[in-house]
Amino acid sequence: MRRVKTGIVGLDKMLLGGLIAARPYVIGGPPGSGKTILGLHFLLQGIRDGINGLYISLSEPAPEIRDNMGAFGWDISKVRILDVTPEGGTGVWVLPSDGFLESMRFNIANLNSLISTEITVHRIGNIVIDSITALKELCERERDVRVDLLSLMNYLSENKCTSLLISESKGEIVDVESFLARGTIRLQTVFVEGKRKRSIVIEKMRGTGFDEQARPMKITERGIEVFPSESLLE
Amino acid sequence: MRRVKTGIVGLDKMLLGGLIAARPYVIGGPPGSGKTILGLHFLLQGIRDGINGLYISLSEPAPEIRDNMGAFGWDISKVRILDVTPEGGTGVWVLPSDGFLESMRFNIANLNSLISTEITVHRIGNIVIDSITALKELCERERDVRVDLLSLMNYLSENKCTSLLISESKGEIVDVESFLARGTIRLQTVFVEGKRKRSIVIEKMRGTGFDEQARPMKITERGIEVFPSESLLE
Amino acid sequence: MRRVKTGIVGLDKMLLGGLIAARPYVIGGPPGSGKTILGLHFLLQGIRDGINGLYISLSEPAPEIRDNMGAFGWDISKVRILDVTPEGGTGVWVLPSDGFLESMRFNIANLNSLISTEITVHRIGNIVIDSITALKELCERERDVRVDLLSLMNYLSENKCTSLLISESKGEIVDVESFLARGTIRLQTVFVEGKRKRSIVIEKMRGTGFDEQARPMKITERGIEVFPSESLLE
Amino acid sequence: MRRVKTGIVGLDKMLLGGLIAARPYVIGGPPGSGKTILGLHFLLQGIRDGINGLYISLSEPAPEIRDNMGAFGWDISKVRILDVTPEGGTGVWVLPSDGFLESMRFNIANLNSLISTEITVHRIGNIVIDSITALKELCERERDVRVDLLSLMNYLSENKCTSLLISESKGEIVDVESFLARGTIRLQTVFVEGKRKRSIVIEKMRGTGFDEQARPMKITERGIEVFPSESLLE
Amino acid sequence: MRRVKTGIVGLDKMLLGGLIAARPYVIGGPPGSGKTILGLHFLLQGIRDGINGLYISLSEPAPEIRDNMGAFGWDISKVRILDVTPEGGTGVWVLPSDGFLESMRFNIANLNSLISTEITVHRIGNIVIDSITALKELCERERDVRVDLLSLMNYLSENKCTSLLISESKGEIVDVESFLARGTIRLQTVFVEGKRKRSIVIEKMRGTGFDEQARPMKITERGIEVFPSESLLE
Amino acid sequence: MRRVKTGIVGLDKMLLGGLIAARPYVIGGPPGSGKTILGLHFLLQGIRDGINGLYISLSEPAPEIRDNMGAFGWDISKVRILDVTPEGGTGVWVLPSDGFLESMRFNIANLNSLISTEITVHRIGNIVIDSITALKELCERERDVRVDLLSLMNYLSENKCTSLLISESKGEIVDVESFLARGTIRLQTVFVEGKRKRSIVIEKMRGTGFDEQARPMKITERGIEVFPSESLLE
Repeated sequence: MRRVKTGIVGLDKMLLGGLIAARPYVIGGPPGSGKTILGLHFLLQGIRDGINGLYISLSEPAPEIRDNMGAFGWDISKVRILDVTPEGGTGVWVLPSDGFLESMRFNIANLNSLISTEITVHRIGNIVIDSITALKELCERERDVRVDLLSLMNYLSENKCTSLLISESKGEIVDVESFLARGTIRLQTVFVEGKRKRSIVIEKMRGTGFDEQARPMKITERGIEVFPSESLLE
Repeated sequence: MRRVKTGIVGLDKMLLGGLIAARPYVIGGPPGSGKTILGLHFLLQGIRDGINGLYISLSEPAPEIRDNMGAFGWDISKVRILDVTPEGGTGVWVLPSDGFLESMRFNIANLNSLISTEITVHRIGNIVIDSITALKELCERERDVRVDLLSLMNYLSENKCTSLLISESKGEIVDVESFLARGTIRLQTVFVEGKRKRSIVIEKMRGTGFDEQARPMKITERGIEVFPSESLLE
Repeated sequence: MRRVKTGIVGLDKMLLGGLIAARPYVIGGPPGSGKTILGLHFLLQGIRDGINGLYISLSEPAPEIRDNMGAFGWDISKVRILDVTPEGGTGVWVLPSDGFLESMRFNIANLNSLISTEITVHRIGNIVIDSITALKELCERERDVRVDLLSLMNYLSENKCTSLLISESKGEIVDVESFLARGTIRLQTVFVEGKRKRSIVIEKMRGTGFDEQARPMKITERGIEVFPSESLLE
Repeated sequence: MRRVKTGIVGLDKMLLGGLIAARPYVIGGPPGSGKTILGLHFLLQGIRDGINGLYISLSEPAPEIRDNMGAFGWDISKVRILDVTPEGGTGVWVLPSDGFLESMRFNIANLNSLISTEITVHRIGNIVIDSITALKELCERERDVRVDLLSLMNYLSENKCTSLLISESKGEIVDVESFLARGTIRLQTVFVEGKRKRSIVIEKMRGTGFDEQARPMKITERGIEVFPSESLLE
Repeated sequence: MRRVKTGIVGLDKMLLGGLIAARPYVIGGPPGSGKTILGLHFLLQGIRDGINGLYISLSEPAPEIRDNMGAFGWDISKVRILDVTPEGGTGVWVLPSDGFLESMRFNIANLNSLISTEITVHRIGNIVIDSITALKELCERERDVRVDLLSLMNYLSENKCTSLLISESKGEIVDVESFLARGTIRLQTVFVEGKRKRSIVIEKMRGTGFDEQARPMKITERGIEVFPSESLLE
Repeated sequence: MRRVKTGIVGLDKMLLGGLIAARPYVIGGPPGSGKTILGLHFLLQGIRDGINGLYISLSEPAPEIRDNMGAFGWDISKVRILDVTPEGGTGVWVLPSDGFLESMRFNIANLNSLISTEITVHRIGNIVIDSITALKELCERERDVRVDLLSLMNYLSENKCTSLLISESKGEIVDVESFLARGTIRLQTVFVEGKRKRSIVIEKMRGTGFDEQARPMKITERGIEVFPSESLLE
């Protein structure tokens, strides 16, 4: 099975070489845990490896994302950013039109069309959806969540896309997407002797062995750094 | 009472020889705990023992399941896989047609028909349903869950099928299927001195004695390994 | 007041001779805690003492119950088993017809009729309902639960039946049936120094003194054994 | 302000002489904690002091209550027991007719009429309602609970009745009746060094000083005994 | 900014002189924590300082309040008590008529009118509403709670009333009124080495410095006593 | 990226110079934690730096805010305060008219218009909304919350406003606004050896490094003071 690098050396080591290609993965964690940065690492590494990348932002406007990544000295101009945030001040959520597409009301079906066009036209291989939690809220009924998520995940897999689905962890309940995805990576903040420390743990990863321990991570001026041979207590 | 092996040596030892045949069991645990791998161990062992096996996947497409099992060096070509995942990108969940069956809307009644045909035509003896949690979400009303699960379990028993029903543990509440099934095996991750360790415990098993203690388990390149004579603290 | 033995020597000792006759009791506990076995102990002891016994199963088919009890070397052929589990594969829950009764839709009123006929025709003295939790789910509205349970309990008392109502403990909330019944016995699994140990405690018992401490219990090849003079810490 | 004795010597000492007359109090606790026994102590003491007593049972039939109290050697023949439990086997809850009253559907208004007649005809001074939790479930809407409880409490006060309202504690949430009543006495089971011990604590008591500490209590063959000069740790 | 004394010496010290006048404050705590007594201290001190006081009781009848306060040796004859408890036995909640006002159905709007009349006619300066929790339950919809509370608080402020709003703490959730009020004082019971001890803490107080620590308090025969220079651990 | 100072020296140090301009931030915390004071620090510092500031109060009337800030010796006369609290005593929530605007019913759309006018007419650069929690309650349906918040945040960003959105923390659940905002600063009260201590922690901050540790803070007569080189345990 082909591997796709996350672009974070320590995390790729924990994954014994990277993510298995053409599958959907969940990146979970609380606000400020580094989920978005991890997503951009993944897309940038893809560009370096010749894989076209698409970042679908449901919350942060594209210019801000570019500015933030500039702070890490990253050039993300080659990453396609689909800015599907609601229009300022109107309370209306429409999907962008870009020549191929008319402007459309934002719902699951329309977003699927939009993604489908993106994948075909721009030959996308790596996708980040930020966040899958926002997508879930668009489902008409609670019971639709599972089928809508699975349908999207299957579509991405069938089109050979490796995808990271960013999930907002609100509490102790395990989210359904973690059961459905082929792997789950969780970012956390732990308190060790009164100090906040960041950690990363691979909770689930199908089709491969992996480092099962939680490892320390840092967010530095070069992005996320993971320390796969250190333990949290060190 | 006839015994059916799970195919995991240590677990069969904990079970004093295996599961009692023709009954439904729950396999519970969080994402990444090894529920699906345990299911495949069970079906592969069945094949070796001359029992036809059926894996009903409600989330992962069949090709991925085959790829994942290849990573353990397993040949699961003799296991029937019923891929009842939703169609990619459509948000529609239909059951597959395979010559015997027309394509049908996915609901409990139709899934029962499909399973019924499978059991008869392919003389199935061992079944894994991955996951029973997805099935429960198909029930029209909360009150239907118990009768629908019991009706399915009874049908499987009457047809002499030994079945593993994979259950997604979302929190602290005990799921109804654990009360209804004839046995429950739970996979967990515990932290012992800052290290993540996997464990397995038989919470319930009717009609037989069994090892009541939680035991360490590992997921290695040969699948699940259970250590029935070790304690979690060792 | 007349006493009825539970058939578990240690438990009868904790009860200072047994349960007070013609009253309803709750047996609570998680899956696999031994609730059903306790119920069968009670009915078998009744047979030995000349009291006709009825086991009403709402989840496990009668043949399985007989097989399971055979594993303890018990002959339960003299216990009447009313198998009111849903029909296999149909999703329909009907009550059985056995010459006296027509097949009926399963609801609280019909189940009451069925029990009433059983008590009269077979002169039943001891009853186990497995489970009262399933019965509660049949109530049309949340507010009906209390009156329906009380009405059933009163009917059983008026007909001089001693009854054990098995209750599925799903969490920390105290179930309403524990307030309504005349006694509650809870089966639990506790962890003592990393070992799972079974325990039994009489939480409530009207009209008599009783041992108020939690005591160790085991499930062995002879059924449940309770150790009324040992403490959990020993 | 006139004091009314509870009939439990140690508790009356904790109350500096007894309950202030003509007010409603809540007795809370889990199943088996002794709430009903405390209520009967109170009524029996009233009889000894020349106060007519009324016990309104919403769950246990009158004959059982009498049998249970016989076990303590108590003669409760002078206590009026209003058995308002649902009719056996019918699922119908009607209020009793006793010459003064026609049989009526059980609801808050009708129960109020019934109590009103009882108080007038039998010149009742002490009342126990077992349980107020059942009464609350009769309220049509969540918002009616407060006004219906207050209306009942005010009626009892205006008629110079001292009343104990038994409340089923289901969890950690403080019940509204504890805020509305003029006092709350809570019965509990605590674990001290692995032993279950009973305790009693006065959580609230308006218009008087009282012992604010939790004290040990026992249920013996003479009923409830409270040890007001011992601490729980002794 | 003008200060209004609470009448509890230790609490006024914690407040650096008292509450800032003409603002609404929340007094929170479980049943029996002393909320009502604190409210009466405040009104009595007001009388001594020439400020007319109004106590609005939504649960306890006026005569009982007077009796309870007599137990502290207090003469509260000069405090106006508005008894807006539901009529005994009718389940109807009407507001009182007193010459100025017709009897009215109890709702938020009518209560506002009633308070408005009281303030004008009796030139009220200090108000206690016991309890704000009851008021909240009168709001038609969950979303109205915030605007109805704010509207009431603003009205009181505009009319230069200093008000204490008594809040029933039912659990761990922070109540909305604590965010809206200009200050929150919480009364609690803590266990220190097995002993129940009362404590008081100012959680929030706008426009002034204050003692941020929790302090011991007692309820004695002279009312509430606060010990502002002691810590809870002493 | 341009930085905007919060006006709290220690916090600006933790932020490596201040907030990134033209973005929305969440300030979270329980009642009395200093959220409003932090907001005013920010606006006052803006005035000093030539940035027009707008404080939108949804709970506290403007005169009280001015009085409270006077207690810190601050002159906030140059800060625009938009008092959108409900009218006293009417239970009606209308938005103010000030020459430019007619009085309008308070809803999300109308508030957006009001803010839009304010920004244009008064050339506002810094905004505090106190509180975003109140705004969320105005959304018609649960599903509208995300799009309405995002739409508002985008509008503020597009108009180059740096905004602080004050969020009422009611429990353990992470609020959606913390995922949507570009940064989250949380104010807390911790107990260290029985003493209440205030702390501040930057949970999330996009586009910049920052001090990830929780730091002690005090509210003194000069406002909030943060100690960025001390740890909570010191």
